[in-house]
Amino acid sequence: MDFNNNSNQQDAINSFQQVRRQTLALTEGLSAEDMVVQSMPDASPLKWHLAHTSWFFEHFLLQPFCENYSQFNDDYSYLFNSYYDAIGPRHARPARGLLTRPPLQDILAYRQHIEQHMAALLQRQLPGVAELLTIGLHHEMQHQELMLTDLLHLLSANPLAPAMQQAPAGQHACEKHAPPLQMLCHEGGLLQIGATDQGFSYDCEKPRHPYHLQPFKLASRPVTNGEWQQFIDDGGYQNPLLWLSDGWHCCQQQQWQAPLYWQQQQQQWLSFTVNGLQPVNLSAPVCHISYYEADAYARWAGKRLPREQEWEVIAAAQPDAMADANFLEQHIWRPTACASQPGFQKLFGDVWEWTQSPYSGYPGFNAAQGELAEYNGKFMANQFVLRGGSCASPRQQLRNSYRNFFHPQQRWQFSGLRLAEDQ
Amino acid sequence: MDFNNNSNQQDAINSFQQVRRQTLALTEGLSAEDMVVQSMPDASPLKWHLAHTSWFFEHFLLQPFCENYSQFNDDYSYLFNSYYDAIGPRHARPARGLLTRPPLQDILAYRQHIEQHMAALLQRQLPGVAELLTIGLHHEMQHQELMLTDLLHLLSANPLAPAMQQAPAGQHACEKHAPPLQMLCHEGGLLQIGATDQGFSYDCEKPRHPYHLQPFKLASRPVTNGEWQQFIDDGGYQNPLLWLSDGWHCCQQQQWQAPLYWQQQQQQWLSFTVNGLQPVNLSAPVCHISYYEADAYARWAGKRLPREQEWEVIAAAQPDAMADANFLEQHIWRPTACASQPGFQKLFGDVWEWTQSPYSGYPGFNAAQGELAEYNGKFMANQFVLRGGSCASPRQQLRNSYRNFFHPQQRWQFSGLRLAEDQ
Amino acid sequence: MDFNNNSNQQDAINSFQQVRRQTLALTEGLSAEDMVVQSMPDASPLKWHLAHTSWFFEHFLLQPFCENYSQFNDDYSYLFNSYYDAIGPRHARPARGLLTRPPLQDILAYRQHIEQHMAALLQRQLPGVAELLTIGLHHEMQHQELMLTDLLHLLSANPLAPAMQQAPAGQHACEKHAPPLQMLCHEGGLLQIGATDQGFSYDCEKPRHPYHLQPFKLASRPVTNGEWQQFIDDGGYQNPLLWLSDGWHCCQQQQWQAPLYWQQQQQQWLSFTVNGLQPVNLSAPVCHISYYEADAYARWAGKRLPREQEWEVIAAAQPDAMADANFLEQHIWRPTACASQPGFQKLFGDVWEWTQSPYSGYPGFNAAQGELAEYNGKFMANQFVLRGGSCASPRQQLRNSYRNFFHPQQRWQFSGLRLAEDQ
Amino acid sequence: MDFNNNSNQQDAINSFQQVRRQTLALTEGLSAEDMVVQSMPDASPLKWHLAHTSWFFEHFLLQPFCENYSQFNDDYSYLFNSYYDAIGPRHARPARGLLTRPPLQDILAYRQHIEQHMAALLQRQLPGVAELLTIGLHHEMQHQELMLTDLLHLLSANPLAPAMQQAPAGQHACEKHAPPLQMLCHEGGLLQIGATDQGFSYDCEKPRHPYHLQPFKLASRPVTNGEWQQFIDDGGYQNPLLWLSDGWHCCQQQQWQAPLYWQQQQQQWLSFTVNGLQPVNLSAPVCHISYYEADAYARWAGKRLPREQEWEVIAAAQPDAMADANFLEQHIWRPTACASQPGFQKLFGDVWEWTQSPYSGYPGFNAAQGELAEYNGKFMANQFVLRGGSCASPRQQLRNSYRNFFHPQQRWQFSGLRLAEDQ
Repeated sequence: MDFNNNSNQQDAINSFQQVRRQTLALTEGLSAEDMVVQSMPDASPLKWHLAHTSWFFEHFLLQPFCENYSQFNDDYSYLFNSYYDAIGPRHARPARGLLTRPPLQDILAYRQHIEQHMAALLQRQLPGVAELLTIGLHHEMQHQELMLTDLLHLLSANPLAPAMQQAPAGQHACEKHAPPLQMLCHEGGLLQIGATDQGFSYDCEKPRHPYHLQPFKLASRPVTNGEWQQFIDDGGYQNPLLWLSDGWHCCQQQQWQAPLYWQQQQQQWLSFTVNGLQPVNLSAPVCHISYYEADAYARWAGKRLPREQEWEVIAAAQPDAMADANFLEQHIWRPTACASQPGFQKLFGDVWEWTQSPYSGYPGFNAAQGELAEYNGKFMANQFVLRGGSCASPRQQLRNSYRNFFHPQQRWQFSGLRLAEDQ
Repeated sequence: MDFNNNSNQQDAINSFQQVRRQTLALTEGLSAEDMVVQSMPDASPLKWHLAHTSWFFEHFLLQPFCENYSQFNDDYSYLFNSYYDAIGPRHARPARGLLTRPPLQDILAYRQHIEQHMAALLQRQLPGVAELLTIGLHHEMQHQELMLTDLLHLLSANPLAPAMQQAPAGQHACEKHAPPLQMLCHEGGLLQIGATDQGFSYDCEKPRHPYHLQPFKLASRPVTNGEWQQFIDDGGYQNPLLWLSDGWHCCQQQQWQAPLYWQQQQQQWLSFTVNGLQPVNLSAPVCHISYYEADAYARWAGKRLPREQEWEVIAAAQPDAMADANFLEQHIWRPTACASQPGFQKLFGDVWEWTQSPYSGYPGFNAAQGELAEYNGKFMANQFVLRGGSCASPRQQLRNSYRNFFHPQQRWQFSGLRLAEDQ
Repeated sequence: MDFNNNSNQQDAINSFQQVRRQTLALTEGLSAEDMVVQSMPDASPLKWHLAHTSWFFEHFLLQPFCENYSQFNDDYSYLFNSYYDAIGPRHARPARGLLTRPPLQDILAYRQHIEQHMAALLQRQLPGVAELLTIGLHHEMQHQELMLTDLLHLLSANPLAPAMQQAPAGQHACEKHAPPLQMLCHEGGLLQIGATDQGFSYDCEKPRHPYHLQPFKLASRPVTNGEWQQFIDDGGYQNPLLWLSDGWHCCQQQQWQAPLYWQQQQQQWLSFTVNGLQPVNLSAPVCHISYYEADAYARWAGKRLPREQEWEVIAAAQPDAMADANFLEQHIWRPTACASQPGFQKLFGDVWEWTQSPYSGYPGFNAAQGELAEYNGKFMANQFVLRGGSCASPRQQLRNSYRNFFHPQQRWQFSGLRLAEDQ
Repeated sequence: MDFNNNSNQQDAINSFQQVRRQTLALTEGLSAEDMVVQSMPDASPLKWHLAHTSWFFEHFLLQPFCENYSQFNDDYSYLFNSYYDAIGPRHARPARGLLTRPPLQDILAYRQHIEQHMAALLQRQLPGVAELLTIGLHHEMQHQELMLTDLLHLLSANPLAPAMQQAPAGQHACEKHAPPLQMLCHEGGLLQIGATDQGFSYDCEKPRHPYHLQPFKLASRPVTNGEWQQFIDDGGYQNPLLWLSDGWHCCQQQQWQAPLYWQQQQQQWLSFTVNGLQPVNLSAPVCHISYYEADAYARWAGKRLPREQEWEVIAAAQPDAMADANFLEQHIWRPTACASQPGFQKLFGDVWEWTQSPYSGYPGFNAAQGELAEYNGKFMANQFVLRGGSCASPRQQLRNSYRNFFHPQQRWQFSGLRLAEDQ
């Protein structure tokens, strides 16, 4: 199923139902308690995600397109609007975890209500609906990933270190050695960057435009936990010369000694994962690092982070890059070991890859019209672009031109890095 | 039933069961979601209160007195120890709301487990148990009040302003005028202060000792909401000359304009209560004010706050003061209107009354032995004594010598004031 | 010269001039740079002290009593009012160090201007002036001590560790042993506390009133640095059971390991003093400790801090207690070694002694009239009383009933402790 | 004199002496008090600037090139190293204002000492010295601008609003109307960006490289105060839809209502300037705005901020752009009115112009070798590029490729904006 191709009525309904089911499936095994608590201002309760993604369809589709539609609950726009100033005032983000009411069962009823009305709306094939449906589905897929990252953060704060799911037997045995890292060449040149006309893309991926790249090399695979451990052992977290100035300040203030979720017990590094506290898998990509750490590692390794354009032209040249990527649908929800194979590995899935590119508007950038103008454009300061998706990203969300973005100090996403260098 | 008189086996068991039932009864109508969230560092989730009060019996009674007793769960001492450094490390107070696990049903099972073992222990009538049982019951009663105050705070942070219970019909009609306030005289002298030998008391209420009081007057009733509104209208919150220096700083920084939970809508003052958002009852005692506000009000009124010893000698002289007090058992859980009657009114119940007495050790104070030494003594700095209990206090918890204490900026307790003056 | 006995014209003028000279003498050897900088919000620049003490005479004496008096500079009331809300708005306390203008020479001219006009006023012997003069002189003496404490703090923040003055030869040789500490008895009883009618006293020392004391013991001398070092060596700063709850929180947050200004170099404790960085004098009273530390030490020692009334009745019983006290006029400006002698030592001078008494109004307390009502009364929350004066206190400022007060976490004053216990 | 052309001995000595004299000239009329205080962590005391710029020559030239050179004072490297981690530990930046010692006269003697030894060194024409001299001079010119910006900030915090210098008569008369703003076209294309081989440039301006630009328009002049006032009047500071998300958060938290240093008195906008508090000159470029404000203004105006490459290609096409620029040497030190003339105005001087370009390394960027690697590279996160210099920039510091950079919330620089748009 291609969520971007909702040209006929049944495809649209199928896509919608499949995305909604996948959202709810992420809450299997969780209690209402697990879904109401907010572990930090950056993260949201799962109940909030369930409600907000429903509100999105209600506000952008049901209200404009369904005459006589009455909101499920008049308070919900205030409670579940995320950041759209154009729509009106809203509940403060850091206080989302105080909403013990409405209870989970009301939110589940809200979801059903929205789904019934959306099914009816999609039957009618009104002009304009297909485009907004697609945005709504992509929006909900983004929140699927956030549900996993936010839940992992919440559980990591629990001294009981509870697992979200059992690790598949044998899957995470710690191979000592990942395949050797190769730096593969690209000749650069004046290249086309940004979303093509095929399929869905966000405003920030457009317009497609020429961009001049110098010749460069890109690593065949992401940096692994084993390599990261060498960085730690070599004093990487104690040497200011490796760090950006803001990064070193942050490292000291937060007392970083290792990636988020790592802890040392009896000389061994463990990491809190969806399977609970586990020995660090040395051959898997390092994960839950900030931009600052990624940048410091690259400097320590005598290399640099790639530009987002470098990543994109490489990805565009690998037609099957996504074929066996470790995405959310694999239900593994943690990075897996790198295998020995020629060419580029794991460009998609496993870990988002920090690039050295600040998140800015492309030349000719035009924010989406109306209230959706706030979707991307207003975040274009102080954030860096990440590419490629992670083990928590829905497959359909990703594409070569997809730009994710976070502040350089943030670590709770499934974020890692891949090295680059000039030729 | 007198929880302090557990001299025989059946009385002890009855007292224990009655207190435990009363705790659980406070959670009626609440969801697991309501009971897991922490709305601020000062407040704790209700689930935590349920667990902590059980851990108290497990740690101080079951473990020392029951051979072969094995803890319900080895992690619970870390999770549910409140502040006893002597017992060991513990989960950080501001992070209590992150404990979505163990789930509520486990805590309810924990309560049952403790209750079964306690019943068996109490059958055995071992020496030393009765005293610790009494402390445990009084401890649990303190947490009953905290459950109500913490829950009220949590619900107040919800834009839906949900009510904990329906207001009894007609009960809170707003009488415009409370009975006139009278200042009643006491001649002072060298008087005995502190707990007598009858019944239970905490270490901080002892030893009973002589204290010299000058002649003074004490108000016949607490200050009402109607009177407080005059303070507001007269610019009380804008005039630094009325305030303590630390208090004025706090008032400005927190932007106080009225008691906690008050808000103005269309010229009318409303207050968030257990019955939801309600018009302020002008003839009921003002509630949810800080020491700083109480002190400023008294200065504005040309009076002062009472000393705790003044309050105590007055209370001791009213044998029936507690007879019709508005305590937790009334299930009203908000202050009620002052009635016209001679003499002192509402010394007990309705609202805790701030005194001008810093919380200090009495002459000859000896902290309780062992781990319970931390129960009271280590809080003897920066706090002020409150007397008389509130509409959320269990009746059996109170007595003339009972000293409650909070920091002068804290407002989420059911705290009000009664005026005093020198003769 | 007795600054309280300004009954005739020449005595008044002499007292005034002597106090003013002593203020200025404290700035000898200092540059304008030393006198403009503010090292923390609690401390003020010396230039500000010079100006504020002049403004005090201008506002409370020259303006009310001298017709046609015109202010030296209309801006100075805004700049140099300390905390009198009744007088009007003022420059923010933490921003006092930003006032590079007016320059020091203007402030010195301001002082001269005030002194000339004050001399003329004092010639006239108007009713009411003598009382206000006395307050002004006592006020200025308080600021003399603050000038030394604030300057010491500023210099301590300088990596060059500059000395304010040279240590007299041989004076601070480190005797290894202070004389043994004796606990001396007092039988208690109903005693008179507070200022007598003789001489000047602040409103907070009055009214004199009966207070009942239980029998107690008070230590013959303050706790020494040598004893404090034992507390450190015994893990006193690492053991929460010794500390008040607020104190332990503060100790951990501020990472206290020793008194303020102490540092360890090659196993030896040094302390920054007016003579620069010096080996800690083991037989001198410990200094620059918070209330929290004093309280923890007393608990560690199996004793307690005295009540302020206990200290006062003891001091009142030693007629010559002040005779050879180490006060500001000695020009030593650091505590000196305890000598072997019978009875109480160093009740006055050397170090302020923390008492366990919160700073509160005495029974019948009436704040001074008018703007001076803000002098003491508005600080009666969250502070503890210190008694006896320090090596930085002017001798004339002190008396048996004098109550100094600071917040329990403050350490930059010359504050130490003397032990007490119940009999 | 061209400070980059120090090919022969005498030119080098002349350049050095001229820059050093210009630094000292900026302190004319200032007291030692004015030069020791630090008004915020971002700003440094002028005394510190005087010392640091001398330490720079001592560390990078005298110590490596002069055998037997002994430092003026061994402590100064610790005190006056700014941010070079490779050189060693250093005094904390926010504590620079606590250094009342060494006194100003020592720093002036330090300057003379450095100048004498530098003169001797320059006589010897050693290889490598000329390049480092040039860097040292450019470094000192950067600090000349900082001295003015930091001093302005300090004086602005003084309620006396002291002027640094008298305004030239008639110069700042407020013309009501600036010449109309024109948007001038450029066709874009694959263009060369970055420093050429002629003259000095920093590592971050290199290497020169091709960059592809779309056709664009750039405004003929900066945005004026008069235009900014319309933005204010139109509610620009109250409308979140105009702002970046981080910017709106900052605007609300800091309660921005106008540019830094503006205040409203009786309906009129005044601005604190080097000439004291002055009516805002409506026809002069707006100054002391953050990136967030510049970006919000551009959105309000229906335009956008320029890319730094757009600015650079325009500047490179105006051979005389710097001819009559308002630079530091004009001694005006505030922006002047825009005149009516064809083509681009004020590309250089008056105000730094925020661009939408995050400060990043150019393709092929190589940080300078050795300790100077920290000069620019480690600041490449969270900052935006500004172009063109200001009324406080020394003329010789500027060139087409010069990249200044600040965090988007910083406002104390002489920063303004010029609009751009897509064709």
